[in-house]
Amino acid sequence: MKILSVNAGSSSLKFTLIELPEEKTIASGLFEKIGISGSAYTIKYNGEKVKKEVELPNHTVAVQILMKELLDMKIINSLDEIEGVGHRILHGGPEYTESTILTPEVIEGISKYNELGPLHNPANLMGAKAFMDALPGVINVGVFDTAFHQTMKEREFLYPVPYEWYEKYAVRKYGFHGTSHRYINKKVSDYFKRDDLKIISCHIGNGGSLCAINAGKVVDTTMGFTPLAGIMMGSRSGNIDPSIIPYIMKKEGISAEEVVNALNKKSGLLGISGVSSDSRDVEAAAEEGNERAKLAIDMYNQRVANFLAMYNNLLGGADVICFTAGVGENSKEARQDIISRCASLGLKLDPERNNTRGEFALISSDDSSIPVYVVPTNEELMIALDTMALSNK
Amino acid sequence: MKILSVNAGSSSLKFTLIELPEEKTIASGLFEKIGISGSAYTIKYNGEKVKKEVELPNHTVAVQILMKELLDMKIINSLDEIEGVGHRILHGGPEYTESTILTPEVIEGISKYNELGPLHNPANLMGAKAFMDALPGVINVGVFDTAFHQTMKEREFLYPVPYEWYEKYAVRKYGFHGTSHRYINKKVSDYFKRDDLKIISCHIGNGGSLCAINAGKVVDTTMGFTPLAGIMMGSRSGNIDPSIIPYIMKKEGISAEEVVNALNKKSGLLGISGVSSDSRDVEAAAEEGNERAKLAIDMYNQRVANFLAMYNNLLGGADVICFTAGVGENSKEARQDIISRCASLGLKLDPERNNTRGEFALISSDDSSIPVYVVPTNEELMIALDTMALSNK
Repeated sequence: MKILSVNAGSSSLKFTLIELPEEKTIASGLFEKIGISGSAYTIKYNGEKVKKEVELPNHTVAVQILMKELLDMKIINSLDEIEGVGHRILHGGPEYTESTILTPEVIEGISKYNELGPLHNPANLMGAKAFMDALPGVINVGVFDTAFHQTMKEREFLYPVPYEWYEKYAVRKYGFHGTSHRYINKKVSDYFKRDDLKIISCHIGNGGSLCAINAGKVVDTTMGFTPLAGIMMGSRSGNIDPSIIPYIMKKEGISAEEVVNALNKKSGLLGISGVSSDSRDVEAAAEEGNERAKLAIDMYNQRVANFLAMYNNLLGGADVICFTAGVGENSKEARQDIISRCASLGLKLDPERNNTRGEFALISSDDSSIPVYVVPTNEELMIALDTMALSNK
Repeated sequence: MKILSVNAGSSSLKFTLIELPEEKTIASGLFEKIGISGSAYTIKYNGEKVKKEVELPNHTVAVQILMKELLDMKIINSLDEIEGVGHRILHGGPEYTESTILTPEVIEGISKYNELGPLHNPANLMGAKAFMDALPGVINVGVFDTAFHQTMKEREFLYPVPYEWYEKYAVRKYGFHGTSHRYINKKVSDYFKRDDLKIISCHIGNGGSLCAINAGKVVDTTMGFTPLAGIMMGSRSGNIDPSIIPYIMKKEGISAEEVVNALNKKSGLLGISGVSSDSRDVEAAAEEGNERAKLAIDMYNQRVANFLAMYNNLLGGADVICFTAGVGENSKEARQDIISRCASLGLKLDPERNNTRGEFALISSDDSSIPVYVVPTNEELMIALDTMALSNK
């Protein structure tokens, strides 16, 4: 069966058409600058890439064009072939703890949590509505970044703040990248044919989070109330002393939102290196001798190692450690450096095995206390699999 | 020689008169509610405690009364016996990396950092000036909470925020409780007659911080730009997602300062339990079955254990772990529970040895991977020792 896996942003729409259960990507593409000038779309199919500049006033038009192109390019022969559409939704609050069939009522329910993800959730839901209109009768499924983490216990998901902030305003750790961490957990559990594994999933890319998983349940994760928290990222600070916010507000004469915006967009690798939020650019600058780029990488890797050590203890000793996402899948240097900072845990990479990119691979040496794997993530596939599962119910 | 060790707050003045090198406390006391109604002072000497209610318009008057009482109570026969006064000063910024003889110029220099510690530093310096006036010719020494931590490297002391916030506004991790952590380091290093030890010092009381020390140098510490950061404390949140600040500002219609004030004063054990910021009260409530008190203790202990595991790895395996301050010295339950959460590190307490309060004691079992000690802290003594050392120079 063919399932569309969709990620709708405020001015973009990404899709992947996947054949299941073969897990084969048939086509994929991106509609960008929706509602703003310079809009265009790209579709990849059969090794070819089509790019067209066209006016895209809204997501509904983008979805109509997508349907037409799928037929015109003979990717499908009839819209009936699309048996389900899965939608990435950032925030399902504490309520949506698993993937859910989307109905107008469910969309209404999810929109309660829009204020917890104001940049993403309304767009995610707008995209879902556009597909529900374009493909009546086809199942639409919401797959939440937060859902997997809702197995956390109060000890980890509560913040040590006034309890009424939790009761009245839902202030708690939600965690993000849940679809990715869940996919890693599934891949590794399937590989070992075990459902009792203790796994540390290190999703490190432009955004980044670690997740401590015990037998399929999340014990803790580094992102928090929002995706700002946790480890240092491409342009995000991760955890800092919260007192810095009022201090910078006063010094710069800016609002709290503006400070948090700088913590999201001008911090992390970019903030320290001054070079880029892209780790490849920062690594290149470091190799050319840029001291602040070197420092940025040093800080970044140490913070990942710190949480690795913390989560290994929290799990009472992990069974498997996984690297995934942009940096985790592709940078052997980052993996080597991070693991070398965990020598006290008895972790050890094999340089030959670690010389790998984007493939499922064991990278630790045989005498490593815990095996370390690269596991390429595939959120689109996870979304499609969830959609298939719910369409069969 | 007799040294006065002083801690001046905005409306209080604590002192301890110490005989050195015997390290014997001769007398101690507290002047409280200085400048406000209901002011009084207490002096303890020779097993007796004198309390007098008297108007204390300012610190100068408090110091004058103290000098008179020291003579009247025959604690000293002449003011000449006081050979030095050491002052606890919260914040020395990046500049004052060790205890320093106070002159009008040095006080001027330290006051540059008052805005980094606005609640404490001006008062600390006001106290110092009062003693300098009252005892002309006697050495006065500033001992900084931040000084010990200034051996941290950029990797740990910088935040992953825009670099210019560090350059222009001195935003960085300073760390606090430095005088306590330094005292623990000294005690343990003296005890083992080694200066190359890797020590994790767990100062857990109403405020709390952990410090990872390698051969007398701080590698990392949990408090940050201010004492708000790090582990959960009596009434402080420790690390949280910084995005919570603008969110609560909007929800409650309050300023960033008011949110940070709530994070400092209404959070931590108090915020979660709703009972108290004092761990003894929270423990008592938990024993009576109060679920939120149990949760508060669970959260508190886990956060200490998390950083213990992180710092053990950061140090490449610690040689000694120490508990100190109110909870660390006195609560065998807290120590037992925290260490039991570090089983993956091979840590193990001996229940008999752990049945101790406020005494230097080995509390781990012989098969613990790392020895664990209770080491009572003594910041007053550390301040006096620094003062003696500088008076001899």
